[in-house]
Amino acid sequence: MLSLGQASTMVDDALRQGAALGCAPLTVAALDPGGHLLVLKRQDGSAILRPQIAQAKAWGALGMGLGSRALAERAATAPAFYTALAALSEGRVVPVPGGVLVRDSEGAVLAAVGISGDNPANDEACAVFAIEHGGFVADPGQTP
Amino acid sequence: MLSLGQASTMVDDALRQGAALGCAPLTVAALDPGGHLLVLKRQDGSAILRPQIAQAKAWGALGMGLGSRALAERAATAPAFYTALAALSEGRVVPVPGGVLVRDSEGAVLAAVGISGDNPANDEACAVFAIEHGGFVADPGQTP
Amino acid sequence: MLSLGQASTMVDDALRQGAALGCAPLTVAALDPGGHLLVLKRQDGSAILRPQIAQAKAWGALGMGLGSRALAERAATAPAFYTALAALSEGRVVPVPGGVLVRDSEGAVLAAVGISGDNPANDEACAVFAIEHGGFVADPGQTP
Amino acid sequence: MLSLGQASTMVDDALRQGAALGCAPLTVAALDPGGHLLVLKRQDGSAILRPQIAQAKAWGALGMGLGSRALAERAATAPAFYTALAALSEGRVVPVPGGVLVRDSEGAVLAAVGISGDNPANDEACAVFAIEHGGFVADPGQTP
Repeated sequence: MLSLGQASTMVDDALRQGAALGCAPLTVAALDPGGHLLVLKRQDGSAILRPQIAQAKAWGALGMGLGSRALAERAATAPAFYTALAALSEGRVVPVPGGVLVRDSEGAVLAAVGISGDNPANDEACAVFAIEHGGFVADPGQTP
Repeated sequence: MLSLGQASTMVDDALRQGAALGCAPLTVAALDPGGHLLVLKRQDGSAILRPQIAQAKAWGALGMGLGSRALAERAATAPAFYTALAALSEGRVVPVPGGVLVRDSEGAVLAAVGISGDNPANDEACAVFAIEHGGFVADPGQTP
Repeated sequence: MLSLGQASTMVDDALRQGAALGCAPLTVAALDPGGHLLVLKRQDGSAILRPQIAQAKAWGALGMGLGSRALAERAATAPAFYTALAALSEGRVVPVPGGVLVRDSEGAVLAAVGISGDNPANDEACAVFAIEHGGFVADPGQTP
Repeated sequence: MLSLGQASTMVDDALRQGAALGCAPLTVAALDPGGHLLVLKRQDGSAILRPQIAQAKAWGALGMGLGSRALAERAATAPAFYTALAALSEGRVVPVPGGVLVRDSEGAVLAAVGISGDNPANDEACAVFAIEHGGFVADPGQTP
């Protein structure tokens, strides 16, 4: 599991990367392997549902054991299943890129980072950057 | 944030405009920037789910930071995401035109107006009229 | 059932009475006999949960067919029942004075008014005033 | 409303104060006036429900317009009302000290800080310290 210090640095790095890329205001969440919040920051002007979306991207990745890009691809071909998952999980699964698993060098899941605010590709890019900058392996769910 | 007086006038203006346009009975809600109700009025004959729909149009606009017409366009191309948002938000996001952000001249969000009862274009037109009549900038989410 | 005009006047009269009595900022809701919102107004400075509380006082009165003062008395002697009702109704029953039935001269229920913001006795007094001022019979649930 | 920078500093100051006082691992949340998360940090070893409790202390304070110590006192004398509020708010009101309103010098509510992890008095003390250290007025709900 990540320490609070590591998770905080990751969140701050993601926000810094968003600013460097000229992203819209972001909300960044880091969750532990049990899906519970470690750190969340919402930038000025990031809308009020963003904290839930950022958490749900990360939670869905942990919930299914797959980065949320893979969930998005599966939702496109199995929409009824993901509609059922939305209900089953009480909304905690959002199948859109930007929920990225944090793995160690042996593949173990240490945490997940979820970002919402810009388009899904940019959200994901900021998460991947922050995870790799922290010395971990980012698993966005394929083809990043 | 709007005062109760400003929000009440906006709601009454929207109802008056609905009557002028020959709209079906409307329900009009004005929410503060945090998504909490300021004023709601339901006209005689406006059906019993209309208060929830009117609030959800406005809440969705605030939640995502976009007028609900933009949400409707996005939902058409990303249905799985909006199905997930419905669950995530416990039904408080309705991606249909008629949830209009109230902005000041510098773009800050002061409130949102949501209307339900007639077709979405007419609902939206009444909200836009009322917001502009109050001296504010109406942001319906593009192409109104 | 009340018309929108009658319900709006009642809500405005309640707010005016609150100001005359020096009450804290109030939220006032008027619901139809089916428990659905007709009118709600939240005064500047009335806290963000007040719209839910005001509605739940009125909804509980309609739900049980008793002004909410009677519900408060019963909750004191049957707490387990009212805890169960809170769950059963998904939070829509709040057993505290201030949810007042609007009856006609023959006793038929036409609406309910719920008020939150000051202490329960003052909330209730404003509701009773507004209902009687409108020419209806106020039923607060005994001993007002 | 607080900026992200101000809210982050407040959360970090509260954690630092918790360490200085020898508190158990804390979770600290800062919410905007609409009850939406700005920043949350959970210290290593702070249990998995703490993020929800910290948020609910702050949310309850905002929802009722009173620091959560006042809610705790009221809950002791009006338990049925607070049981009803728990259901009504879907669990977002926790009437225990440690949810502290952040006010400006004129009394306007800018945010709320909620802390969970140690006993309520210590949780509250860390919140009050952080808010005052940031140059704001801490309103814990009387007698701190």
